[in-house]
Formats: sequence, C-alpha cells, structure tokens
Amino acid sequence: MRVYFATSNVHKVEEAKHVAREYGVELIPTQAPKIELQSDNLRDVAVYAAVLAYQHVKAPVIVEDAGLFIIALKGFPGPYSSYVYKTIGVNGLLKLMEGVEDRRAYFLSVVAFAYSEGVKVFYGRVDGEIAREARGSKGFGFDPIFIPKGSTKTFAEMDVEEKNRYSHRAQAIRRFCEWLVNEGPSHL
Amino acid sequence: MRVYFATSNVHKVEEAKHVAREYGVELIPTQAPKIELQSDNLRDVAVYAAVLAYQHVKAPVIVEDAGLFIIALKGFPGPYSSYVYKTIGVNGLLKLMEGVEDRRAYFLSVVAFAYSEGVKVFYGRVDGEIAREARGSKGFGFDPIFIPKGSTKTFAEMDVEEKNRYSHRAQAIRRFCEWLVNEGPSHL
Repeated sequence: MRVYFATSNVHKVEEAKHVAREYGVELIPTQAPKIELQSDNLRDVAVYAAVLAYQHVKAPVIVEDAGLFIIALKGFPGPYSSYVYKTIGVNGLLKLMEGVEDRRAYFLSVVAFAYSEGVKVFYGRVDGEIAREARGSKGFGFDPIFIPKGSTKTFAEMDVEEKNRYSHRAQAIRRFCEWLVNEGPSHL
Repeated sequence: MRVYFATSNVHKVEEAKHVAREYGVELIPTQAPKIELQSDNLRDVAVYAAVLAYQHVKAPVIVEDAGLFIIALKGFPGPYSSYVYKTIGVNGLLKLMEGVEDRRAYFLSVVAFAYSEGVKVFYGRVDGEIAREARGSKGFGFDPIFIPKGSTKTFAEMDVEEKNRYSHRAQAIRRFCEWLVNEGPSHL
C-alpha cells in the first residue's frame, strides 16, 4: 500500500518510513504547499494541512505535526515548537529551564490521513524529561534535550530504531498503519 | 465613519479608539470567529483574519495583529507573542535575556482592513529595548518590559495617551484612519 507523506522534513520521513515498512505500507514523501493554521491545537493544524495536501496531491496523504510540551512552562513550546526551535533553539529552552526542578515534558504527535472518505487522526505521545544539558547529535529539533521515560539517553543519542521504540511519531504512525491495514480503504 | 474592529482584546480596543477618534472614525468592537493562520508572517495572519471577519460581519472591519521581535533572539517571540505570553510570559522572556547585552527589540503592528473592494494593510513599528526587569502595571502583554526609543519608561508605566505617542498599534491605526478619511471608500 502506498500513501503520500506531505512534509519537507527528511528526518520525519526517515523515522516514519522505518515504522510503516513493518506494516507493508510505503510512504512517499511529497512537498504539498503547506499552509498552517495558527492554533494552540495540534489536531486542528494537522487536519487542516492534510485536507490542503489532499487537494494538491489528489491521492491519499498523511501530514504529521508534533510538539514538545514542557509542564513547568505551561506547555511551551507546544504547537509552536518548530518556530521556537528556529529562534531561541535548544539553548533557549535550557535557559528557561535553569533552576527548574520539575523537568517533566512530553512529545505529542498527530498524524492526519486525508483520503476520499474524509480525514482520520492518530495520536502518539511519549512522556519523559528535559535533560540538564544537550546530548547527542542524531535526530532533529529538541531531540538533544529530551529523555524518554525508560531510558537514560536523549533522543539525539539514539539511532532511528531505538528512538522509534519510544517516540511519539513512531506510535502515531504505527496506529495509522494498523488502522490502514486492518480497517482502512481496501482500494489504496 | 464607523468601522468594526474584530478583537477580543479590550486593551487593543481602548488604544485604537483613542487614536481613531481624532480622525472622526468610530471603531465598534466585535467578536468575529477568529481562525488564525500559523505563519511567521504577521501580514498573512492579519489579512486572512480580516477576510474571515468580513465574511462574518458583512461590513467594513479591521483586524490588528502585533508581535514583539527581539533581535538577540532572532525575532522571537514575533508572530507567536500572545502564545508565548500565555506560557512563559514576561518572566520567561526576561530569563532568556539574562546576560544578553544586545537588548534591542521592536513591536510591529499590522492592521488589515477588509471591505467590499478588498483588503488594505497598514503597518506600525516602534523600536526600543527590553528592560532589565518588569516595570509598571498598565497596558497588557509584554508592555512591562518594553522601553520605546525616546523614553525611559516601559509601555506599562504609561497611560494610553502617552503609549499612543510611541506605539506600533497607534501608528498603524493612524495610517489606516488617514487613508480612510482621505482616500477610503466614501460610502462608509
């Protein structure tokens, strides 16, 4: 089964492909024009982007949106993680967390699948904590400062296979693939 | 002349009304459903919101969007200022600016006016710097840490009249009113 994946992030593609392959699902990267809603709600953003991507690609397509939510910062940077990454970056978040004892955070991923029958949404979430300093050079974004529960490594210290055992994105893609294979439209 | 102002921010209304009154323009607050584009571009956000507001109000309407851009933080929080205010707030920005010598920042305001003939956009900008600590309790948002060039007070230490002598929003509203009175549609 082949499904388009509208994104310009090569890291996302690599992570998602690894997971999808296990289900016999082939993800084909495509760069649909991406107009994002400004919303505090990841789901709205992903659904809106998926509908636009579907209009463009004219074939079944997924969009994935993710955010890092830090409890002590009231969820910041949340849905605006990629903008915050581009501006204050990893060091900015570490600075905001200086002297903060509550390090709890989670990554949330939303996969929106748009196809002829509408849009379906799948979630993934990984709880963990913000590291005291950046570690590792793999992955992307805030991976160097996120340690998932059950590990002592940051995401940036893991290769794709290991990160996918924990990651929010892998979970959401897995849920999507399970649905697609078992209950999805058979004509894909 | 009467023009609707789609916003749920009473501070914005108060500031804008003060200015508009000088031009004989009456701004009528209204709460149009506001769907915001997620874009790094304030203009896009304002234009999109104004078009939606016009469809709802079915009468000439303005939308105003503003952001605080801090040079040393690559423009952060910029278009996401209100989300950043709600999460890490004034203290978060002060923390990010600890030990940072370059305090330069500016507020940008975009007023988008939607009417039967299309959309017109007006800008206002005020340069200044980020204070070392929060001062004052007037205004809203990041006013307690912004000192406009030409003053030693923060925006939050000024009453509306004084803030309007400097402010990005007052400038943009003034430009809009000048256009409306001199070149705008005569049937308003």
